[in-house]
Amino acid sequence: MRISTLSEESGVSVASIKYYLREGLLFAGEASNATRTEYGAEHVARLRLIRALIDVGGLSVGAARAVLAAIDDAAMPIVHAFGLAQHAVTASLVSSTAPSATALARITALKVERGWQVHEQNPGELVAARVVDAYEALGRPDLIAVLPAYAEAAEIVARADLDTVLAVGPEGRTRMVETVVVGTALGDGLFTGLRRVAQEHVARQLGLPGSSLEHAAEQKLADPKDDLS
Amino acid sequence: MRISTLSEESGVSVASIKYYLREGLLFAGEASNATRTEYGAEHVARLRLIRALIDVGGLSVGAARAVLAAIDDAAMPIVHAFGLAQHAVTASLVSSTAPSATALARITALKVERGWQVHEQNPGELVAARVVDAYEALGRPDLIAVLPAYAEAAEIVARADLDTVLAVGPEGRTRMVETVVVGTALGDGLFTGLRRVAQEHVARQLGLPGSSLEHAAEQKLADPKDDLS
Repeated sequence: MRISTLSEESGVSVASIKYYLREGLLFAGEASNATRTEYGAEHVARLRLIRALIDVGGLSVGAARAVLAAIDDAAMPIVHAFGLAQHAVTASLVSSTAPSATALARITALKVERGWQVHEQNPGELVAARVVDAYEALGRPDLIAVLPAYAEAAEIVARADLDTVLAVGPEGRTRMVETVVVGTALGDGLFTGLRRVAQEHVARQLGLPGSSLEHAAEQKLADPKDDLS
Repeated sequence: MRISTLSEESGVSVASIKYYLREGLLFAGEASNATRTEYGAEHVARLRLIRALIDVGGLSVGAARAVLAAIDDAAMPIVHAFGLAQHAVTASLVSSTAPSATALARITALKVERGWQVHEQNPGELVAARVVDAYEALGRPDLIAVLPAYAEAAEIVARADLDTVLAVGPEGRTRMVETVVVGTALGDGLFTGLRRVAQEHVARQLGLPGSSLEHAAEQKLADPKDDLS
């Protein structure tokens, strides 16, 4: 297909396609004659991954290039490409302020408790440790009591995440990495939403003090938005 | 204590304290004579909650006022105050674009599967449904396969969240609501970080294709940041 068709098929503008070609994110098409270059389905798939990396994952063009290079290096084990993609998607969450040694030690202890075998300073550890510091700074060190339950839940989510990656099959490197990027970046929001729903369910189930005493208040709860106007 | 001491104790500037007094977020101190007003420990606790609502929870002053009014209304069951606080902390995550009916139906089905008793359109449902729409828009409807596992994990996290609220004791309404706000808002980041760590653990455990073949690549994985420079 011509570049105009590639643009239509992928939903990426011709200008952006040319930019990605110049920046080395998208491999060149095949010159069928002096004035015409042919693109194929692999270009459509690649463009979709590029947009996932940049638009969904929030990667810079440089970071996207590094992830794409990992996919293209057939000698590089997929787990490495996976690690690169995961790191890149997490990078924007890592604060420029380093967490305290105490908070990092707490996360390390959690890894030991759960038998998690990971390298030192997985970017996620820095993100989690900063929250532990924030609890402390807000005068709420008691809130770290949630850590074991959160870690158990994180492992359940991680297994589901990896299942979607493995379902792609090892031959599809591009699609596997796309799955890591899209699943990791969007999964945060999915979990956040479901957590809110589960919180309401558990709060009602526990019958928080007074919750069953006043039907009118229950009805008010049914649409708390009204109260925030 | 005088307002200057209250400022030191709470870490909130005198100008901000006066603003919160004018806006009705902070109750007035006791006038001990014509020129002096006394503040107490309850003002320190209240200021801490106000900052948690605004700085940590991302609430507008108006939304914070609604949550504080719920706490102050002793006739209002704590579950209502809880619902208000949870809704307020979630409001910023709700997209202005409504999710599709299909995505909402998928989340409703999930609630039925898990036996979750919640009112229609908990804000978390809208957040989760929008992610289901995004999977579809990215050509990855297969990723909704993670929903049951995410819901199971969300319930584990929600139980831990509610445990921290109940640990405060029903008499401490201010502190209970502070726990909801701080725990809900910061807990998202904590879970996100732990999810990344768990993902790496599970990926290594599953031995993703090639992961055990090349020690050099494993070492490279140990600090993928090097590859992103």
